Amino acid sequence: MPELRQNIITRDWVIIATERARRPETFVSRREKRAALPLHDPSCPFCPGNESQTSAESLRIGDEAGWRTRVVANKFPALVREGMLSRRMSGIHRSMQAVGYHDVVVEHPRHDAQLPLLREEEIFDVLSAYQRRYVQVREDGRVETILIFRNHGVAAGTSQPHPHSQIVGLPVVPAQVRMRLEIATRYFDETGECMFCRTVKDERSSGDRIIFATKHFLSFIPYAALSPFHTWIYPLRHMSSFESCTEDELRDLARCLKSVLGRLFHGLNDPDYNLLIRSLPTHLVQTDYFHWYMSIVPRIAISAGFELGSGMFINTAIPEQSAEFLRGIGEAK
Amino acid sequence: MPELRQNIITRDWVIIATERARRPETFVSRREKRAALPLHDPSCPFCPGNESQTSAESLRIGDEAGWRTRVVANKFPALVREGMLSRRMSGIHRSMQAVGYHDVVVEHPRHDAQLPLLREEEIFDVLSAYQRRYVQVREDGRVETILIFRNHGVAAGTSQPHPHSQIVGLPVVPAQVRMRLEIATRYFDETGECMFCRTVKDERSSGDRIIFATKHFLSFIPYAALSPFHTWIYPLRHMSSFESCTEDELRDLARCLKSVLGRLFHGLNDPDYNLLIRSLPTHLVQTDYFHWYMSIVPRIAISAGFELGSGMFINTAIPEQSAEFLRGIGEAK
Repeated sequence: MPELRQNIITRDWVIIATERARRPETFVSRREKRAALPLHDPSCPFCPGNESQTSAESLRIGDEAGWRTRVVANKFPALVREGMLSRRMSGIHRSMQAVGYHDVVVEHPRHDAQLPLLREEEIFDVLSAYQRRYVQVREDGRVETILIFRNHGVAAGTSQPHPHSQIVGLPVVPAQVRMRLEIATRYFDETGECMFCRTVKDERSSGDRIIFATKHFLSFIPYAALSPFHTWIYPLRHMSSFESCTEDELRDLARCLKSVLGRLFHGLNDPDYNLLIRSLPTHLVQTDYFHWYMSIVPRIAISAGFELGSGMFINTAIPEQSAEFLRGIGEAK
Repeated sequence: MPELRQNIITRDWVIIATERARRPETFVSRREKRAALPLHDPSCPFCPGNESQTSAESLRIGDEAGWRTRVVANKFPALVREGMLSRRMSGIHRSMQAVGYHDVVVEHPRHDAQLPLLREEEIFDVLSAYQRRYVQVREDGRVETILIFRNHGVAAGTSQPHPHSQIVGLPVVPAQVRMRLEIATRYFDETGECMFCRTVKDERSSGDRIIFATKHFLSFIPYAALSPFHTWIYPLRHMSSFESCTEDELRDLARCLKSVLGRLFHGLNDPDYNLLIRSLPTHLVQTDYFHWYMSIVPRIAISAGFELGSGMFINTAIPEQSAEFLRGIGEAK
């Protein structure tokens, strides 16, 4: 019997489609192996030696031997840094200049690096770059929301194989984000607790959907996972902003992320995925009701007319089975 | 300079990415021509002669010579017809049985039929089947929302080439739909007019984004189009529900739809797309503030981490240029 499960964060329903559900192992990517990449590609703007081809480097992590991670401006930015935040009205239509930030985090000098196969210290460099750039962008008062995300593979929307992430600073709070904040606020008002802390507590006590736990983080499949192997990583400590992570916590997150991405990599044959960090809008400070987290969405299912029309999702994987499957995959070497 | 444009229906912002914008002709699908389909496929459950392979036919349009359009139950339904609507609580989690309808509209007996290449009378049959089944499903008091949609092509989420659409009856109102109703209600309360009627009036007077107009319908590219060639078809007359369309209007819609899909077919080389009808939740009756419409979303862009994280979209096509391009494509023969 198929089941509707409510996503506690958006209050939307997900259909767990038992009638068409598939065993976890059937989701292993049948895509042909990615073409082996060279260690260094002389025509890649992100490879060492081509630093002058990228614009406006805002951050570099490294030493005299060279950089390990860099943050540069996107060459074809969706938002530009210069401009006024004035809104224009034309009849019923509102517009404004797309002022903001659109940066690229070049994660590693090696063209063929794979995030889950890097050492924890290297993943820590990437997370540090995220956080340090987050703080820089947040300083610009025009920015209201900062998105950090990573598109892995063509189905996830990237065509540049050199490992990279993106950081976008928006001059607005997206309606979707406002709605989530409202729901979290209402939950706090009604119960006196953070909805996310409560979720962590419940998931730890049931254990059914847990993938991996570290000292400071818990990774699990959401109860109302939107799609097969949709995965969350929550900090155990209540923090509203990614910025609040201590160095010790970031190192622990690197460990957790390596394990989770490694399980997806080895267990599902390196699926394409999107990874994103959901943090508090920058004009809010630490709140009792919002808790930042990381979301990983393997691009295994195609969202179609149903999803477009309803905003709801149909998931053909049972969350508890997905978690069990990933627990059974050894950690990446 | 990139521009943020506000989607009046969701109040979310779309980035019109001028820095990476492409001319309309660059969006022509480079996908290889679809494999030519046979007129009849003996192994296809939707082809004539195999009617017994489909379950629970609820509607048939045709005559003694045979059927022209059928509505049958989906063999692997996301929702099932039998069951109670009771909600279960387990800790903070809510679930319910996925009770509802999941039907398939077999649009035409020919396995190789292409909607825009059919005659207007044949498209009218499909739209009539939508409407007649809509009325049947709405009679079931457990149903709160009816979605009608069509997935065309693999990128749009279908693997069955025989031309078909789907009708889903949900026992809930999706949060996304609730939010749209709230916004439309507020607009009506503030201005005394229907936001959608106002949009039609404005688009007709500017003309910049119009694709095609018929006696009762207007098709145009939304001011804040979410993706390249995102297209709307609005009824000119104020109607909240698709059910209210008269026969005369449905015939006119067939004409409009044929023209619009034909322009996409010929102009963009038969792109994959999702088509959907946004109608009022079934427990509401005709309202002053909501207006049903049809939305067509070609699957040209891939939504990635940015879209997932923000609910916002980056569009690399300028809506006015897309409309001009489609106006210039002759109607399908």
